[in-house]
Amino acid sequence: MSENFRQGDFTLPGEAGYEQLTLDLAKKWGADVIRDSDGTKLSDEIVKAGYGIYSTICIIRQHNEFALAHPDSQQQTFLCSDPVVAAGSSVILRPLDGYFEEQFQVNDSPEAMACWQVYDRTTDTEVPREHWKYENGAVIVSPCVPWHSYTVSFLAWRVWEEINMYNHTTNHWTSEHLRQLDPRHPLAWEYLQKWLRDWCEQNPDTTVVRFTSLFYNFVWIFGSDARLRNRFTDWASYDFTASPAALKAFSAEYGYALTAEDFINQRKLQATHMPPTAHKRDYMDFIQAFVAEKAKALVDIVHSYGKKAYVFYDDSWVGMEPYGKRFASIGFDGLIKCIFSGFECRLCAGANVPAHEIRLHPYLFPVGLGGLPTFQEGGHPEKDALQYWVSARRALLRQCVDRIGLGGYLHLTQGHPAFVDAIERIGMEFRKIKALQKDGPAYTLPIRVAVLHTWGALRSWTLSGHFHETYMHPLIHINEALSGLPVEVKFISFEDAENGALDGLNTVINAGRAGDAWSGGDAWKRNRLVEKLTEFVYNGGAFIGVDEPSAVPGYDTFFRMAQVLGIDEDTGARVCHGRWTYKIDPSFPFGDPSDGLKDKEHLYLTDGKAHVIADMKGVPQMSVNRFGSGWGVYLSDFIVNPRNTRMLLDILVYAANLTDKAPYITGDCRAEAAYYPASKTLIVVNNAPECVETTVSLPDGNWLNVSLMPLETKEIAL
Amino acid sequence: MSENFRQGDFTLPGEAGYEQLTLDLAKKWGADVIRDSDGTKLSDEIVKAGYGIYSTICIIRQHNEFALAHPDSQQQTFLCSDPVVAAGSSVILRPLDGYFEEQFQVNDSPEAMACWQVYDRTTDTEVPREHWKYENGAVIVSPCVPWHSYTVSFLAWRVWEEINMYNHTTNHWTSEHLRQLDPRHPLAWEYLQKWLRDWCEQNPDTTVVRFTSLFYNFVWIFGSDARLRNRFTDWASYDFTASPAALKAFSAEYGYALTAEDFINQRKLQATHMPPTAHKRDYMDFIQAFVAEKAKALVDIVHSYGKKAYVFYDDSWVGMEPYGKRFASIGFDGLIKCIFSGFECRLCAGANVPAHEIRLHPYLFPVGLGGLPTFQEGGHPEKDALQYWVSARRALLRQCVDRIGLGGYLHLTQGHPAFVDAIERIGMEFRKIKALQKDGPAYTLPIRVAVLHTWGALRSWTLSGHFHETYMHPLIHINEALSGLPVEVKFISFEDAENGALDGLNTVINAGRAGDAWSGGDAWKRNRLVEKLTEFVYNGGAFIGVDEPSAVPGYDTFFRMAQVLGIDEDTGARVCHGRWTYKIDPSFPFGDPSDGLKDKEHLYLTDGKAHVIADMKGVPQMSVNRFGSGWGVYLSDFIVNPRNTRMLLDILVYAANLTDKAPYITGDCRAEAAYYPASKTLIVVNNAPECVETTVSLPDGNWLNVSLMPLETKEIAL
Repeated sequence: MSENFRQGDFTLPGEAGYEQLTLDLAKKWGADVIRDSDGTKLSDEIVKAGYGIYSTICIIRQHNEFALAHPDSQQQTFLCSDPVVAAGSSVILRPLDGYFEEQFQVNDSPEAMACWQVYDRTTDTEVPREHWKYENGAVIVSPCVPWHSYTVSFLAWRVWEEINMYNHTTNHWTSEHLRQLDPRHPLAWEYLQKWLRDWCEQNPDTTVVRFTSLFYNFVWIFGSDARLRNRFTDWASYDFTASPAALKAFSAEYGYALTAEDFINQRKLQATHMPPTAHKRDYMDFIQAFVAEKAKALVDIVHSYGKKAYVFYDDSWVGMEPYGKRFASIGFDGLIKCIFSGFECRLCAGANVPAHEIRLHPYLFPVGLGGLPTFQEGGHPEKDALQYWVSARRALLRQCVDRIGLGGYLHLTQGHPAFVDAIERIGMEFRKIKALQKDGPAYTLPIRVAVLHTWGALRSWTLSGHFHETYMHPLIHINEALSGLPVEVKFISFEDAENGALDGLNTVINAGRAGDAWSGGDAWKRNRLVEKLTEFVYNGGAFIGVDEPSAVPGYDTFFRMAQVLGIDEDTGARVCHGRWTYKIDPSFPFGDPSDGLKDKEHLYLTDGKAHVIADMKGVPQMSVNRFGSGWGVYLSDFIVNPRNTRMLLDILVYAANLTDKAPYITGDCRAEAAYYPASKTLIVVNNAPECVETTVSLPDGNWLNVSLMPLETKEIAL
Repeated sequence: MSENFRQGDFTLPGEAGYEQLTLDLAKKWGADVIRDSDGTKLSDEIVKAGYGIYSTICIIRQHNEFALAHPDSQQQTFLCSDPVVAAGSSVILRPLDGYFEEQFQVNDSPEAMACWQVYDRTTDTEVPREHWKYENGAVIVSPCVPWHSYTVSFLAWRVWEEINMYNHTTNHWTSEHLRQLDPRHPLAWEYLQKWLRDWCEQNPDTTVVRFTSLFYNFVWIFGSDARLRNRFTDWASYDFTASPAALKAFSAEYGYALTAEDFINQRKLQATHMPPTAHKRDYMDFIQAFVAEKAKALVDIVHSYGKKAYVFYDDSWVGMEPYGKRFASIGFDGLIKCIFSGFECRLCAGANVPAHEIRLHPYLFPVGLGGLPTFQEGGHPEKDALQYWVSARRALLRQCVDRIGLGGYLHLTQGHPAFVDAIERIGMEFRKIKALQKDGPAYTLPIRVAVLHTWGALRSWTLSGHFHETYMHPLIHINEALSGLPVEVKFISFEDAENGALDGLNTVINAGRAGDAWSGGDAWKRNRLVEKLTEFVYNGGAFIGVDEPSAVPGYDTFFRMAQVLGIDEDTGARVCHGRWTYKIDPSFPFGDPSDGLKDKEHLYLTDGKAHVIADMKGVPQMSVNRFGSGWGVYLSDFIVNPRNTRMLLDILVYAANLTDKAPYITGDCRAEAAYYPASKTLIVVNNAPECVETTVSLPDGNWLNVSLMPLETKEIAL
């Protein structure tokens, strides 16, 4: 790397037909690697230009000839028909009605039919086999109970690989619809291994094989009606791994059989945002073992050709959890994560793999993942790039990755010089941040924070996908805020909390809606969990609860931590109970939380002792409660923005008794600072698009005055 | 009654020391009866003036001498201490901490102690007797589990009759605190009967003994802290009937024992707004039988002296359900209901008793029941009176009562001539409405509506108390709207609905929050209920669901009637499911519902077919769904006002296929009409404080134009 941070650690998407542009931008952006992209090719001129070469492989895709010759090697999923109310003694169900006909085909093979289930959804019971038959594409249930609702759960072939389907429908691709193979099919698996060997032989210039990603896509079920094109999307669901063969192997290994209903789950499916059933946990483990084993075999092939194997942690990643127990065993040389946000940078940076690379947004595509224009009329790619960079930068200041890069069609950058300049600047700032951490990590306050939820470390930093897919969950806002704060952060499960993970922590955060995976649902029925957390706070810890923390029905309080929080939610039974009156207490040093809360109904003070920091419509929305020598803090919601991010830091600092004693904190919340003791360097960043004058606290109690240009990264030697 | 409606059917509160005022107002208001009030006396001059005389008796109160001589004859209740978290191996609970010390005294007699229960609220289990003891006014639990929360449930004497307590604390009374006797105590019961006999003998001029009311007050638990003065108030809870003697008699009769926890119910108590447990249903029946038996004995005494017995349906009314199966057996001659609202008029008018009388608001007290000034600085008693009258009038137009009257201190009317005039006017309007119905009832559209909830007919019209106590429940708004609509209304339980009560109905309304008594909670797990209602709508009926109708967890939809409504609520499991897009459908003739809905989150269209009438923040809030030949209508909320009342009527009319075919409907929703076929008289009322020009639809399809003065009642011969 050059001293002026102009060169290296940058992956450029090359494009055949735009050789000069490719080489020019490679120089301007300081690329050391050129890659192809989904939909682009590299020409010999590019490949031979002396750069490292990443080649993108989607291993299960682009084998339409094999798929058509062996249609039973294609991937499948369980689907459930829409319910039909019986108005008589029989009812007809048409399985695929409402599903996108280009994505699915009914699998009515004998081994698939054995997995079908007809359900009486009114009674929530399965209809016996002898009461239904499948004829001419329809299920006839007879006899049935009049006025009950019926569904059929069935297996469907997925005949259009979903990322290809997305690009066709969003980016107007017109090429052949690509199919996808299931590596569990023995012929397909032999074929794929041979295909990879052949590929490696035919691509000697490739230095890194970039898997995009492995075998099974996250779940993405399209509807036939344009008014419901997206029927279900979950970035971490496992439905697309299902097949009769998988179920057979599962029951052989686990000693019990899964049914369609284990996947269909009362038509709700099993979203990552809900606590998994015990069967789902088993099934995930089963799939993870399979994916790890097969992935290792492919990585071994790549390695045998002297190439490195990186994996892209998006698209067909399911079963390959980077924080799962088997990830390291696969032997990947690098993990690439496409990012919009700080939490995704931390997710990438923290994974146990040699190289960590982030793919910056916007991609060089006409339309962004959020559906808005980027490199087309109405788009502002340079603004987007800098906005995402501001989120990424503060996370990278805490823990840096090894590389950055872009993806997409390079030619789209033409006519966008401001974007080209923005990427050049981002590259230089990234290299500076990386270089600082080479000598040692940023200074972190002596504050250890754990985010407590169902999944624990397995879902470190992310919930399920990008921010814009999960914005309705307060926890993703909290994770995003935490990603750039000068505190230690870990993610623990309820089992962890019961078994020693609270030791040494300062603060535990539990944030979610009652019953979801982030709040925890039935996990809160475990008394040991309540005991451990109660003891933790009593002895000086802090418990921050957001929305419906620790909520579960069946007890005297809805929030199981109400004794610590001093606040609870009335689910209806307390409508005749009086409410403690209160006055807003302005004495806590938490700033103004007014734009981060919602007007949640039904909250009430349990014993009147909690300090109400904010309320809406006469209902407390933020409170602080002394419990033993610790604190219970309640927030009805959390929306990430500079002010609320600072409020969260203020709470963490206050609960750790460090108010006015924390160094390297900016006076203006639009700016943030990171100090690198090894190089005695202070970095102050301006997250705002305007000039900011701020102070920065120093260990000796003094304050440094710093002037920042819009979005500036300022380096100060201390 | 005189032809000009100036005289009769009016009960005036007389006041000793204001004899001339009493007689003057009796004449001006056309009173035929003079009464005393709680806190006032009548003098001989009044009693002998030739009016009927009501005398107010609160049978269980004003016996302090007996109560102090027999302290164990006083009434009791179960209370539960506030929870305490154990920080070690023992924990101390102080039972009455937080309760109003002037209202309660611990009952630690041996028979009471046998009913006490210590609970581990963390595990929701009772602590064995051998692990706690009661010493020096405190419960010591040892050993206990560290970090668990503990409570003690105990019996307390209620040493200040609650209405007397209310008047002292609100109306600044300073007289002796009155105690109350439990008629279940044998000596007390003998004493009360003798006292009533003596009283009847000593009050020969009394024509009607007005019981205020019977034995047990509704539950009203005060706190010691001014910030939580009201700990619990429920107008229809039974806690104040409890005693060791009652529990003993119950177990003898029902074959099982109730415990403190049957009342304390995880510290939630058992509010009327929640579905009762089976034990609570038994206990209510047990108390109702006791109250009816004892009340009949008292009524028989009153009758034996040639007097009539009226009962006031407020205060100590518990156990005397006017729509219960035993009410008629008591033999009351009249029911008096104090009213603010139309639904209370219908409640009174529909009870099975010879005479129905309403007590108008405001009472002649300095402060109203809502806590705002009336007959003191800042009050507007004439405005209040007319406002309540507007609500009452439209209900009385549908079904009239026999008498009206006032209560309180008559001298407070001095200096309020506008109030005196308003009451004179109200009296005349009432008498006109009553006279019209003497010949026959008002014309009713051929629309039969049932309100469906847990309590069914037992809680016809009311939920639990006045409107201002229950405004947070959409059903009270609906009942209030219905009270003046030209439709048949009945109240049915879920059992009724399963057993034929749907026959002949046009529309069923279910309105409440998930799990409460009005929505229904676990009743919706009964498949037969779902079947019957589904069939009912399929065959042409309408189901109107408000807020969280038919909601219960455990099925594929949260609303069990989602198949009929076409809309459902996502409790979290569907956060990854796509949502049907929609356009607002303006084609239904329901007016503008925008001020009666809330911005409820998480609602989604089930199959995309429902017509969305209104939405907020992108979420449907009102929808109409065709199901078979009937309709499912959803409203996220209902706030009673003229526009929404008209919208409800429009829905009922539409669902009955009567749009543009319903006679005697006003064009302006601020006005309402009632037609009396027997006398060929149309009454048009203006509910607004401004002039209104409206049309009224006629059976021949024509429209009548009517001009109305503010609040006017106009009589038109047709």
